[in-house]
Amino acid sequence: MVAVLVKPQGFQTLTLVDDALKAWFGALKIGKPKAESVPLELALYRVLAEDLIAPESLPRFDKSAMDGFAVRAINLESASESKPTILQLTENAEVQAGQARQIWTGNPIPKGADTVIIIEDTKKKDTTIEAYVRLVAGKNVSKVGEDTKKGTLIATASTRLTPYHLGIAAAFGYTQLKVAAKPKIGIVATGNEIVEVGTQRQPHQIYDANKTMFAAMCQELGAETTDYGIIKDNIDEIVQKIKTALDNNDVVITSGGTSVGGLDLVPDAVNKIGEPGVVVHGIALRPAMPTGVGVLDGKPVLILSGNPVAAVVGFEVFARPLICRILGMKQTESRPIVKAKLTKTVASACGRKIYVRVHVYLKGGEIFADPISAKSPGSISTMTQSNGYLIIDEDCEGLGENETVPIYMYASLEVQ
Amino acid sequence: MVAVLVKPQGFQTLTLVDDALKAWFGALKIGKPKAESVPLELALYRVLAEDLIAPESLPRFDKSAMDGFAVRAINLESASESKPTILQLTENAEVQAGQARQIWTGNPIPKGADTVIIIEDTKKKDTTIEAYVRLVAGKNVSKVGEDTKKGTLIATASTRLTPYHLGIAAAFGYTQLKVAAKPKIGIVATGNEIVEVGTQRQPHQIYDANKTMFAAMCQELGAETTDYGIIKDNIDEIVQKIKTALDNNDVVITSGGTSVGGLDLVPDAVNKIGEPGVVVHGIALRPAMPTGVGVLDGKPVLILSGNPVAAVVGFEVFARPLICRILGMKQTESRPIVKAKLTKTVASACGRKIYVRVHVYLKGGEIFADPISAKSPGSISTMTQSNGYLIIDEDCEGLGENETVPIYMYASLEVQ
Repeated sequence: MVAVLVKPQGFQTLTLVDDALKAWFGALKIGKPKAESVPLELALYRVLAEDLIAPESLPRFDKSAMDGFAVRAINLESASESKPTILQLTENAEVQAGQARQIWTGNPIPKGADTVIIIEDTKKKDTTIEAYVRLVAGKNVSKVGEDTKKGTLIATASTRLTPYHLGIAAAFGYTQLKVAAKPKIGIVATGNEIVEVGTQRQPHQIYDANKTMFAAMCQELGAETTDYGIIKDNIDEIVQKIKTALDNNDVVITSGGTSVGGLDLVPDAVNKIGEPGVVVHGIALRPAMPTGVGVLDGKPVLILSGNPVAAVVGFEVFARPLICRILGMKQTESRPIVKAKLTKTVASACGRKIYVRVHVYLKGGEIFADPISAKSPGSISTMTQSNGYLIIDEDCEGLGENETVPIYMYASLEVQ
Repeated sequence: MVAVLVKPQGFQTLTLVDDALKAWFGALKIGKPKAESVPLELALYRVLAEDLIAPESLPRFDKSAMDGFAVRAINLESASESKPTILQLTENAEVQAGQARQIWTGNPIPKGADTVIIIEDTKKKDTTIEAYVRLVAGKNVSKVGEDTKKGTLIATASTRLTPYHLGIAAAFGYTQLKVAAKPKIGIVATGNEIVEVGTQRQPHQIYDANKTMFAAMCQELGAETTDYGIIKDNIDEIVQKIKTALDNNDVVITSGGTSVGGLDLVPDAVNKIGEPGVVVHGIALRPAMPTGVGVLDGKPVLILSGNPVAAVVGFEVFARPLICRILGMKQTESRPIVKAKLTKTVASACGRKIYVRVHVYLKGGEIFADPISAKSPGSISTMTQSNGYLIIDEDCEGLGENETVPIYMYASLEVQ
């Protein structure tokens, strides 16, 4: 790990984000994801736990791509607008030379026929049709396997399922899919000054916003959460609660108590529980410097700031790749990347990575990003006024007005 | 409505997408969305039904932004590294001249103090601290309303709620939010050749993929669906089922039976039920030409193709803006727009809008879009091999290799 030359508030050193992730993941034991079968209607956004392979060809028989008549192409050799070919209508299973059988889109091509002439290119009489065009054999026929051949890999394990994956699975007759079990995440908040939303508060107390956000952010990624309440700043109680959460979950995320003040007890509590305990504490990241990452019983413990914005950014940087890993994904799922023109200069904080919240909008065919978090980086309202992150690297020299930069979107683009 | 000069398969004219949408929405009666209160933990991605206003200032008291000591700035006027100022530690509620009181991040600033000096800029002795820096009054203090002032508009009605909206709502003490009720959508599939997934099928039958996709696409947008099964190609049964679905839902979406063949009965059924019935049938859109839009009892009926890809594109073009409207959104929610470099030339179909499925990936810092649907536009596998739409307008002249084009993403960007 590389110590960087910044003035760390109470930290001896700050660790670079990439080094912290590497150290953390190195100390964790993350196995293959547990798999479970879920019905298609519950599978949206779940992550495949095994490759989805086509069990048969699609279509599984040659079928008509249009409404029309199944014919033999060779019979239409001399057909034209002015000299139509007359074919006998049949309802037999097999189409003979000189015959035509009415067919609808999706119907199997009857034996003996190789081509479909569309209704618009014919005129139907009582027992015959007039055919006005020549066609190459196979015209308007969807051949077996044209969409997907039997044995084709439809989607690899670790794919996040879209409606279209569910559709193709249904087309193959799957009623269930094997997906990674939802990671179970225990959430523990700490702080004497924090109370549960909806309860009485004293004049010096504030409502907890972090547990609500953590739960929703976990839900977005496909994890399920258990709320372990708010613990006062008492190390024994914190130890006890983290232990309980750890016993019942794959991950524990804490909120608060992670600076280096006298009441910031969570890292100490994690170290008290077992080895290796805290792996990194103090990250070269703004906001979210006091973030800590730990390991207990091979399971991850993520120690997030009590400040809501620092907590959100800490979650983005550490919990997001963690949950993707637990789900069996090969890499951290990317948020949509939009290239946008900066409306203002943004300063760097060389030595620290910065997550700048920007408001991204489409105006006159151009996409702009307005940085809104510079003035009050700790304000939770900067998260709701924005819809994307501009990530400024440690070695960056700041970004100029009108520069085009990639933005990682977390809410929908505004169209002005 | 403008008739366009293309050869319509069985249609007298094809209607431009924008004209069809205008005609449809013009004939619909969409009121204000029904509102309901939901607890925060169920509110993710729901759409606000009323403006979210800050009921109090945040923070609601001046509080410390750092761990340190609450002091009077004026007492530090001559403090320096070499000549620290000595301040008396106090635990009283009020900080007097010459005093300092220990304070943690988030604590209210005690009476008499105006500034916080951080721990790192002090040395603590038994009953005093040495302060090494001068500070302007207000340093390290988060003032009342610094994040959000009382009465500030946090999010307007029609906002799709992110985890961060839920966080700020929690910070303000809201346990519930008023959101638009989920639009209720009835789904009716038709077709003699279609059977339910998981049931027995005859050699000429295929599994229904569309109802599964429609349900998932509705779920993505925040609507809830009821499955009305698969109806054989019998107009009376189709009429009956659409009526039932209409009585119990805000929208009815049908699948299949919408070309101009003899067994394509859905538009006829819709017209048989009432006025105005089918508003537009036959859209200048590829795939999805046989799409129809209708209105019965002021409610929308969307007639989609049985072909899965045409159905998906018809849904994208018509159901997406419809559901956004019913949810009270001011405009159709944009999918994330990524600008990508085309790997291949894409032909236009002047006169028709085309939804080309493309595979978008990030490689070497550049984003590419590989068109994959050109060869077999009706293949459902083109939807799972792709992650975005390239939309080619009616008047377009095709797009060249290496051209940079906007892509509307429906699955996450691949990072190679």
